Amino acid sequence: MIGSLYAGHVARVCEVSVLCRREEHARALNEHGLRVSGRHDFTAQVQAATDPAELLEAELVIVATKTTELDAAFSRLAGHWPEAAVMTVQNGLGAEEVAARHGDWPLVSAVTFMSGTRHSDTHVEYILDTETWLGPYGDTPFELVEEIAALLVEAELKAIAFEDLRPAQWSKLIFNSTVNSVAALTGLPHDPHFAERDSVEELGHLVHELMAEGKRVAEAAGVELHEDPWEMNVHATRRGSRHYPSMLEDVEAHRPTEIDQITGALVREAERLGVDVPLQTAMYRLVKAREASWASD
Amino acid sequence: MIGSLYAGHVARVCEVSVLCRREEHARALNEHGLRVSGRHDFTAQVQAATDPAELLEAELVIVATKTTELDAAFSRLAGHWPEAAVMTVQNGLGAEEVAARHGDWPLVSAVTFMSGTRHSDTHVEYILDTETWLGPYGDTPFELVEEIAALLVEAELKAIAFEDLRPAQWSKLIFNSTVNSVAALTGLPHDPHFAERDSVEELGHLVHELMAEGKRVAEAAGVELHEDPWEMNVHATRRGSRHYPSMLEDVEAHRPTEIDQITGALVREAERLGVDVPLQTAMYRLVKAREASWASD
Repeated sequence: MIGSLYAGHVARVCEVSVLCRREEHARALNEHGLRVSGRHDFTAQVQAATDPAELLEAELVIVATKTTELDAAFSRLAGHWPEAAVMTVQNGLGAEEVAARHGDWPLVSAVTFMSGTRHSDTHVEYILDTETWLGPYGDTPFELVEEIAALLVEAELKAIAFEDLRPAQWSKLIFNSTVNSVAALTGLPHDPHFAERDSVEELGHLVHELMAEGKRVAEAAGVELHEDPWEMNVHATRRGSRHYPSMLEDVEAHRPTEIDQITGALVREAERLGVDVPLQTAMYRLVKAREASWASD
Repeated sequence: MIGSLYAGHVARVCEVSVLCRREEHARALNEHGLRVSGRHDFTAQVQAATDPAELLEAELVIVATKTTELDAAFSRLAGHWPEAAVMTVQNGLGAEEVAARHGDWPLVSAVTFMSGTRHSDTHVEYILDTETWLGPYGDTPFELVEEIAALLVEAELKAIAFEDLRPAQWSKLIFNSTVNSVAALTGLPHDPHFAERDSVEELGHLVHELMAEGKRVAEAAGVELHEDPWEMNVHATRRGSRHYPSMLEDVEAHRPTEIDQITGALVREAERLGVDVPLQTAMYRLVKAREASWASD
């Protein structure tokens, strides 16, 4: 869904190829193009295939699959387009390490707060037109990151290049680890309950404590956060967006969630750094158990 | 459901009246009697009405409604049968205080591990034939408790009289606070996941930590537990019962749960005694938020 938002927009300013998993998806895109509705409204021509060998030589590869499908996606890219830059757009941590196991591409890390709804194989609705933040990974030159950010802005998406993405990545990791897991367990969209802290049983207390744990891990990792995740939470819920976090959608559809790559990643970092995160760990175990509850479906 | 198990069994050894909320329930019981199936199999005659004034003068009143309906139930009993003993059978804490607000009856506290399934207004299935534990509350003489226990045993239920019920009540409170809230949030019945502690993300770790918090509260309250709740958990899940906790049933039916009277009671006791229970508090807030998720149904 996020991948389609990038593909559709960028296809208006340069040639875009889409690597699909399903033949009928590729056929539909080649035949009908990719429609974007919502914040923007247009249909873009793209070239689609299920085999990378059938696609044009790429200069930039954007990988925005769910983290649970990341390794499979990079397995298919292995050996292709060795000169291309690869940008991973992920909720959690560790996407770049997965990419590096499959090729020597210069890597760009990205996080995004955009959201949309996939209506069909050829139609995506652009809902939240928020920013993509990107930064170099390893020895990728910052100029390359700036070039990609400029391309996204030319394509009428919002993007900011950072010399060090970690402050932004960690802000988003702590925010996501908390908001996604709380939504997945309570069934609430990201709504005003997440910021309520009047009486003792209110959810905002827990959200605040979960984020405080995350902030202690970031501090131990030597990362100064780009934005305070609690402020992001208060701001988003006051705006009244009632955003439906993807982990809640996954839980309701009985699909595997990204809990291992989001909350799990935070818990493992905390362990590595010797920081105690009992509440984030509890959320991790509860969502894993929730997944187990439909394992016998 | 628990109330029907008591009524049906006891009706075989003495006269039993059933106070119903609905007229058609009372009519059906008067007409067809109360059928018990499962572990035992019989139909008992009972006298039923929706107004206590229409029932026989009682010597023993058993109140086993859900804790959320306790105050309403005692409001209806106020002013009736001042000579009767009142036995409250509850999952949480505080039922006796509610009873005392409505009358001067001698009070008996009870907890039970029996379980059953309500099939209709006149049919209950007896599933787990485990014990009822009872003890005096306030200055109720222990002999009265022994008499009631003997009555239950005569009725072929399992019952044990304790001079001090608190060790048993607290064992059950800690067990219930943990197992009910974990089941409600994960969607898992009480199954072997609750005791698994191999890898770090497994649920048994969380269950163990939640129970450890509860045990610290009991210790601060000066209560020496009758049974270790963790051992109860391991034993029950090894037996393979896959018991469906009532709080999970409530969550799935979008009914109010007993979280305030179970986990909420434990959290309030902890607060009163100055014991830190961050994980039990997190469970309390998550289940409250889960209830809020269907408030707009």
